[in-house]
Amino acid sequence: MKKSLGKKTMLLTHPVMIIGSYDKNGTPNIMAVSWGGICCSEPPCVAISLRKSRYSYQSILDSNAFTVNMPPVKYLEQSDYSGIYSGKDENKFETLGLTPLKSQFVNAPEVAEFPLTLHCKLLHTFDLGIHTQFIGENIETSCDIDFLDDKGIPDIIKINPFIYDTSSRHYYSIGRQLKKAYTTTK
Amino acid sequence: MKKSLGKKTMLLTHPVMIIGSYDKNGTPNIMAVSWGGICCSEPPCVAISLRKSRYSYQSILDSNAFTVNMPPVKYLEQSDYSGIYSGKDENKFETLGLTPLKSQFVNAPEVAEFPLTLHCKLLHTFDLGIHTQFIGENIETSCDIDFLDDKGIPDIIKINPFIYDTSSRHYYSIGRQLKKAYTTTK
Repeated sequence: MKKSLGKKTMLLTHPVMIIGSYDKNGTPNIMAVSWGGICCSEPPCVAISLRKSRYSYQSILDSNAFTVNMPPVKYLEQSDYSGIYSGKDENKFETLGLTPLKSQFVNAPEVAEFPLTLHCKLLHTFDLGIHTQFIGENIETSCDIDFLDDKGIPDIIKINPFIYDTSSRHYYSIGRQLKKAYTTTK
Repeated sequence: MKKSLGKKTMLLTHPVMIIGSYDKNGTPNIMAVSWGGICCSEPPCVAISLRKSRYSYQSILDSNAFTVNMPPVKYLEQSDYSGIYSGKDENKFETLGLTPLKSQFVNAPEVAEFPLTLHCKLLHTFDLGIHTQFIGENIETSCDIDFLDDKGIPDIIKINPFIYDTSSRHYYSIGRQLKKAYTTTK
């Protein structure tokens, strides 16, 4: 029997993305975003949703760029912190002991300690309500070579990212590898 | 050292959502979508990206509605199948032995066997390139009572959903519970 639970932002398996941007003074900032993900294959695009009140909101509009950095479980505390406290009040890279690197591809900082980064150029903004969706074209992907598998692609087990369960509001690690996608036959 | 990998749709932890819709003949259809997720808290909205060539594309436009059903690992084969084969050629509910239930809230079918469903009314479509993004307002969430935790909310461990790793193109299970989100203090 199914029970109605009301209007909810209820999807159990959400990515956690750490968004890098420069503010108007050129200070690097990061914030955790979970509302978003890949939204187009060609051009390859990522969607991230931000409230207007967030400090990164204007920074991304001003610089037309952002990075998406995938945090490993090792940096879960820092990631969580970056989603709570504002770059208005502090330089979170400094507080958290993380290293900002200027992206070689867009006008935004990446997090040196996080193995995988998507370098995004802002293409569209869509006002959806409390959140505005920023669509970025991923013009380059970079990954630390120590976190590639033997085929030269990012290795989810080595990177060890985590997800956000919007129901329990807890983070969860990744489990075991299941089936290869798009292989089921009739 | 970071290595450039080019323009990629590379985010390791993507949800897998089974989208339900009726076609113009009223036949229920499902397809797996991984590009998408929650995109706004108020109104609560879900984004899903579809190629124009997909059979569900026109169905969602015609009915202004869709459901998002979270498949458990138990139904991984059926989910994968639903992302490969088209509702143009077959009734996938019948092929896969799944039960379509008319949503009580929107003009779309839900999958009876999948515990968690978001009932969505189409609000916007955004053409992004190969993919068009459909933004649905989640006007109701329903969950099988056997899959709720002791607080009455959907239990990720009982539901046992899986994620899609866009790098290896494999599905992965959910691992262990980590920290509660938004709890890190200064």
